[in-house]
Amino acid sequence: MNILVINAGSSSLKYQLFQMKDESVLAKGKIERIGMETAILTHEPAGKAEVREVSEILEHTTAIRKVLALLVHPEHGVLASTAEIDAVGHRVVHGGESFKNSVLVTDEVKQEIKRLFDLAPLHNPAHMLGIIAVEANMPDVPQAVVFDTAFHQTMPAPAYLYPIPMVLYRKHKVRRYGFHGTSHKYVSERAAAFLGRPLEQLKLVTCHIGNGASCAAIWGGQSVDTSMGMTPLEGLMMGTRSGDLDPAIVPYAMGKEDLTLGEISSMLNKHSGLQAISGGSSDMREIVEAMEAGDKNAALAFDMYEYRLRKYIGAYAAAMNGIDAIVFTAGVGENSELLRKAVCEHLTFLGVEFDEEANRQGRGLERRITTSSSRVQVLVIPTNEELVIAEDTYRLVQAAVD
Amino acid sequence: MNILVINAGSSSLKYQLFQMKDESVLAKGKIERIGMETAILTHEPAGKAEVREVSEILEHTTAIRKVLALLVHPEHGVLASTAEIDAVGHRVVHGGESFKNSVLVTDEVKQEIKRLFDLAPLHNPAHMLGIIAVEANMPDVPQAVVFDTAFHQTMPAPAYLYPIPMVLYRKHKVRRYGFHGTSHKYVSERAAAFLGRPLEQLKLVTCHIGNGASCAAIWGGQSVDTSMGMTPLEGLMMGTRSGDLDPAIVPYAMGKEDLTLGEISSMLNKHSGLQAISGGSSDMREIVEAMEAGDKNAALAFDMYEYRLRKYIGAYAAAMNGIDAIVFTAGVGENSELLRKAVCEHLTFLGVEFDEEANRQGRGLERRITTSSSRVQVLVIPTNEELVIAEDTYRLVQAAVD
Repeated sequence: MNILVINAGSSSLKYQLFQMKDESVLAKGKIERIGMETAILTHEPAGKAEVREVSEILEHTTAIRKVLALLVHPEHGVLASTAEIDAVGHRVVHGGESFKNSVLVTDEVKQEIKRLFDLAPLHNPAHMLGIIAVEANMPDVPQAVVFDTAFHQTMPAPAYLYPIPMVLYRKHKVRRYGFHGTSHKYVSERAAAFLGRPLEQLKLVTCHIGNGASCAAIWGGQSVDTSMGMTPLEGLMMGTRSGDLDPAIVPYAMGKEDLTLGEISSMLNKHSGLQAISGGSSDMREIVEAMEAGDKNAALAFDMYEYRLRKYIGAYAAAMNGIDAIVFTAGVGENSELLRKAVCEHLTFLGVEFDEEANRQGRGLERRITTSSSRVQVLVIPTNEELVIAEDTYRLVQAAVD
Repeated sequence: MNILVINAGSSSLKYQLFQMKDESVLAKGKIERIGMETAILTHEPAGKAEVREVSEILEHTTAIRKVLALLVHPEHGVLASTAEIDAVGHRVVHGGESFKNSVLVTDEVKQEIKRLFDLAPLHNPAHMLGIIAVEANMPDVPQAVVFDTAFHQTMPAPAYLYPIPMVLYRKHKVRRYGFHGTSHKYVSERAAAFLGRPLEQLKLVTCHIGNGASCAAIWGGQSVDTSMGMTPLEGLMMGTRSGDLDPAIVPYAMGKEDLTLGEISSMLNKHSGLQAISGGSSDMREIVEAMEAGDKNAALAFDMYEYRLRKYIGAYAAAMNGIDAIVFTAGVGENSELLRKAVCEHLTFLGVEFDEEANRQGRGLERRITTSSSRVQVLVIPTNEELVIAEDTYRLVQAAVD
């Protein structure tokens, strides 16, 4: 069975085609700048040369048509016909309280995703465009949706509620949802396998540290808390997002600088985090380079980023009364030796015995960066959200056939 | 030397008169509803009957005149003449970055406190009224100001800066200041004395849990982090304040409910916290009573309150890479056995061995509520902010005379 995984943004579309027999990737790629005359398509078929095209792609239906054409292209393709695509799986950011698991797309599911537009106004409408574009091109192919929020629906009320008037929860759905759930779930399962222990017996803190970043407290395989909240703004300091703030700063800054609701949101989501402190870059590799060259602002940005992450690990240790392992994943988590080192060296009180040598080796592999006698293990597990989406889609389609 | 300690609010004024030889309180009291025809004065002279008066007190100068008259009153007084008051010490909430210590009041100091009105619009103007009212009544008596923020001025930049555009710090002073500093400082010093160890060698988390509530990480006697931020809104869940929130909730709620900047601030400061979740009470005693009578909302409010406090203790353990002791103080911290028990029983991973019996005894006394073998000690230390203000004032006046 071949499954096409789609991650549709408002002006972009990423895809990966999986052959489920061996979970291999037959092709992957992305289209950027959808809506413009100079949209850019990058297509990477397995074992063949990469293709790059610049052309007019004004909306998502055309984008999907382009992708399908490339997948069956005589030279650049990997399939004989689009009929060989058995199902399509979509990433959907926000499933609210409605979706606790991945589901097959039905009219009802589409209605519910639309009702959640308000909670994820930048993401859910774009995902819907992707779903509709696939329907238009392949009306008979089953589609599934996999939600970033679903894994965190197991959080207990004291973790997901905010201490504000309950009318905001009841009327406007204000609560903690959490994101990156697909990744937190995947790496927690991989961590248990790596440790050779049943997930049901483990207390884990998983740190998905990419341009967006979140931690999760995972107890017995269930998410019991996570740092992102109603939106992906809360929690850790990120590339361009502030993370946690005194909430009073929001009205204060709005008043002082005469900002609209949209402007303050944009400031906190797009012009804060590493970028604001470093004075330019939101990329951890550039921050570390600048820091090593003596840039004080870059060093401050790094220190704040590490400090805020470390405090969350401590908080989640208190949430679960101890932890068995900490897992680093995603772009920064998998690749920044220096960040992992700084975090681990300040957590000896938890029983973390850092292994500097192990931390430097094995890039791209699942591995341990603590000594064998370390009471709390620290792992690096490369994440693979696309594979989880493909697996969930496969499972749902199989179950529907049975 | 006799020192009068004043805590002036916008419509209230609390006072305590200390005899510094033995640090005894000669009299204390408060005036409420200043500005009304039915202001209420309560005066408690040591060893004499309490006095309660209802009368018209329209502003702070009159309030101070009333207090002075009572202190020298033939029947209710404790002094022969107001000339026996050697100095006055004021609590001032916000000292910004200008004041790292208590100081004697000068014209320059008053100017600077005025410049900080913007950062504490509800508090600093009221304190200034108190200072001016004392000047009007006792022009020759030296006055000192003791700031809630001063103790936290030792925080390093990664703890006090927010990951938002730096222009907000440079232009509008947006940073973490922290509050309750007088109390955190006092109980940390008392904790070191109680433990019989030098404060310089201790890592402490002090929990000032009253109607307002904050935690501080105190390392070697210096505040290195604290949960309240630019304002007292950030951090722990409190009686009527939310504490930490996804910052995106602020513009979201403003948009959904069409709230002004003032209205959202009022909602988060006055109608959130325990009150919002319990559905009425912001008082921990009432919450616990309701919970024990089976009220589910009260139980949820308690659980959220405890959970959020416990996570801060874990975060600060990570901030300092371990802790030696946790200190509970202020109304709830000193009096809620149940809260202390719930927190301690979930912190065994830190090495906390809770002593249930000790937790129930010794109300009003400095005491330990962990076993003697507990790796991390937990103490209850009654706070005394007024005494610290009196001591600081005494020290400053003595130094000025020398």
